[in-house]
Amino acid sequence: MNDFDPATLRALAFDVFGTVVDWRGTILKEGAIWSAHSGVAVDWAGLADAWRAGYPVAMQRAMKGEIAWGNIDALHRGILDEIRPRFGLGDLPEAEVAHLNRVWHHLDPWPDSAAGLARLKTRYTISTLSNGNVALLVDMAKHGALPWDCVLSAELFRAYKPDPAVYQGAARLLDVAPHELMMVAAHPSDLLAAQRAGLRTAYVARPLEWGAGGYREPFGDARFDVLADDFLDLAARLGA
Amino acid sequence: MNDFDPATLRALAFDVFGTVVDWRGTILKEGAIWSAHSGVAVDWAGLADAWRAGYPVAMQRAMKGEIAWGNIDALHRGILDEIRPRFGLGDLPEAEVAHLNRVWHHLDPWPDSAAGLARLKTRYTISTLSNGNVALLVDMAKHGALPWDCVLSAELFRAYKPDPAVYQGAARLLDVAPHELMMVAAHPSDLLAAQRAGLRTAYVARPLEWGAGGYREPFGDARFDVLADDFLDLAARLGA
Repeated sequence: MNDFDPATLRALAFDVFGTVVDWRGTILKEGAIWSAHSGVAVDWAGLADAWRAGYPVAMQRAMKGEIAWGNIDALHRGILDEIRPRFGLGDLPEAEVAHLNRVWHHLDPWPDSAAGLARLKTRYTISTLSNGNVALLVDMAKHGALPWDCVLSAELFRAYKPDPAVYQGAARLLDVAPHELMMVAAHPSDLLAAQRAGLRTAYVARPLEWGAGGYREPFGDARFDVLADDFLDLAARLGA
Repeated sequence: MNDFDPATLRALAFDVFGTVVDWRGTILKEGAIWSAHSGVAVDWAGLADAWRAGYPVAMQRAMKGEIAWGNIDALHRGILDEIRPRFGLGDLPEAEVAHLNRVWHHLDPWPDSAAGLARLKTRYTISTLSNGNVALLVDMAKHGALPWDCVLSAELFRAYKPDPAVYQGAARLLDVAPHELMMVAAHPSDLLAAQRAGLRTAYVARPLEWGAGGYREPFGDARFDVLADDFLDLAARLGA
């Protein structure tokens, strides 16, 4: 692929939503339980996709100062309130809306995530690097038994990925040079921004992120240092 | 002691040097190995104590801008260079001085630290809250298998304990109210500052921090929410 040598690497920074955890599958699972209890059928797949699709838009609004900065719960809630009437949940009681919105704090990891991270941790420092805030990432790690060495968030840099300040800030806090840090993500756009900031990059395929046959962000002519099928494959490729 | 109820608590923030790890014992151990190899006798206990005693002074200089902010390695190195001629190490080669200075990255935990933290983690979010920087705290956690949920450092708030910004900043990042966060430390001064910032407090006795019969910071008439003999005792007292 290129001249990348894992021996030059000291730390890995992971995108979280979609790369480490299965947001869509978790929303579908919890939605199905709710529908079974309430007897109300909902197009949970459609809701999940619309909810997630609203995220980049809401982040841009936050960056422009139209939404309070760094409050990802409020950001998720704003999107949910906008879309839920379309899915027959316009009259959902406040307590249930608040409960549904908390789903982002306890998303289930992909089946290989915890085991792959544990292997990678034996050789590298492993950290989150998500636009999700620290408290949410901590909740998610506890829920999924994700063995992070460190929980870093865009929140700490008062910016959002793909702003280079986030990638460079992570290298600074971990006290490594940018080229000693590898961004791991299922999203080429995240990796391209990390690459421009001087980081190494690993693309991990998550073909089910948007469901079977669902959306996959195109690669274009991007070149990453490592391409992996999952975190266990990534560990093998990085000698961990 | 007072009306403190562990059920109101959501997270614990730990001082690290002296509270979680045994800086003095580690320096003595590594020093003894160095002396055995080199045949050079050194008063390692005296050096360790002088080194650590220089820390608060150096931090004050850093806060005044006389030393670059947040660089704890440089701060430790400055103190070491000042004191080492007194201990017969004035002519130590640069590589050996640099190696010695790194000891602060891999201090050994007290015997109960890892097991106590693992128990506390089952019920609470557990985080560091140290003046040591993130990278150093991550190295130390990997060395001692300390199962932090989160590595928080004064570095993230561009202040040093006992500045209230550090304690309040930790509560903010963990998304808990100050009274839902408990500072755990072997140092009354740290706990008093946390208390003034609205946090709950747990004093953990570390009678060997400065060696048998060594210095112990006085309590005065301070009142803390919990007094514990070690982290296992703390876990029992907090119902974990």
